[in-house]
Amino acid sequence: MAYNRYSSELLEKAVDEFASLPGVGRKTALRFALHMMNQPVENVARFSGSILRMRNDLRHCSICNMISDTDVCSICGDRSRDGSVICVVESIRDVLSIENTGKYRGLYHVLGAIISPMDGIGPSDLPIQELVERASADNVKEIILALSTSPEGETTSFYLFKKLSAVDVKISAIARGIGFGDDLEYADEMTLGKSIENRQDFNPLKTN
Amino acid sequence: MAYNRYSSELLEKAVDEFASLPGVGRKTALRFALHMMNQPVENVARFSGSILRMRNDLRHCSICNMISDTDVCSICGDRSRDGSVICVVESIRDVLSIENTGKYRGLYHVLGAIISPMDGIGPSDLPIQELVERASADNVKEIILALSTSPEGETTSFYLFKKLSAVDVKISAIARGIGFGDDLEYADEMTLGKSIENRQDFNPLKTN
Repeated sequence: MAYNRYSSELLEKAVDEFASLPGVGRKTALRFALHMMNQPVENVARFSGSILRMRNDLRHCSICNMISDTDVCSICGDRSRDGSVICVVESIRDVLSIENTGKYRGLYHVLGAIISPMDGIGPSDLPIQELVERASADNVKEIILALSTSPEGETTSFYLFKKLSAVDVKISAIARGIGFGDDLEYADEMTLGKSIENRQDFNPLKTN
Repeated sequence: MAYNRYSSELLEKAVDEFASLPGVGRKTALRFALHMMNQPVENVARFSGSILRMRNDLRHCSICNMISDTDVCSICGDRSRDGSVICVVESIRDVLSIENTGKYRGLYHVLGAIISPMDGIGPSDLPIQELVERASADNVKEIILALSTSPEGETTSFYLFKKLSAVDVKISAIARGIGFGDDLEYADEMTLGKSIENRQDFNPLKTN
């Protein structure tokens, strides 16, 4: 199935690179490469340049761990946002999805991963101590847990609940309006927005 | 649906660029960009470099119009191939698809487009004179037409047939084993290979 016989080495290398993108096979990679061949040189230079520049210059916010062009991200640095609420998410994409709903005006804390013994990720690999410190600040009133409903997500939420119980802060979780097992990022804006609005107190130790 | 609020400008630019690829929406582009963020810097530099290098250095073969690293492509330059047969195709991808079948050992002639008055493409925009010249060479015995069965493809085949009729060369067309309206590049190797093997004489003026 190799597309390499008698083809150009320059083309082959570009196809190899495109095929390294997630979900991209060699036919699609070839399509991307030939598309690039039809673009003006300056467009291709801009394409290459922006990706390399992003990788070189993009940083993580020193407060919330979100990607940022500056030391403190534009969300943490925005004074008009509600600093009394911190929403805990697994990934950068989750932040973008929630921002997209326009329903949330608080801050975030990006874990970057969730506790997963299978993948060798334990609590000490996540910025949990940083979260406890942020939650301990006087102005912080509420922590919203917005992790997935997978076993790993539930384990992480439970672990965070225990750690945060020592702090004088309200702990809530986003409403389970989102289908079990669905990823946050693929939820429609309405559902995700509602699930933020209808968040509920979180205490897995309390029997209803 | 914009993913740009409170996000990073560096990220946004990279997402814009990925989203310019054919068939790639902004969610997929974001996924590509975040994937790049997780790669080592040298991998991202290699990714950017190969695409730009391909665009800058890749040329078209001076004989058959196929993309090539050198003035004459590796197919035209391969002495072990059968120089008496020339297969006429619309695009570079068609060459790669036919090469992939391993059933063809002749040469190619890449038109780059087909006659399409709707898109303002006339016969004079295609390298048809070059094809007639190649077909007129003593050693060339057969021209295989492997254009699509769309009205534009049929028109082009008919036009080529008329032009080539003046030349002492056999004209054939690939067997119509491939479903009407299907693109060559998505045909399976078996079907495409068979359709090259079972090519038939081509003369639209002759009534059977």
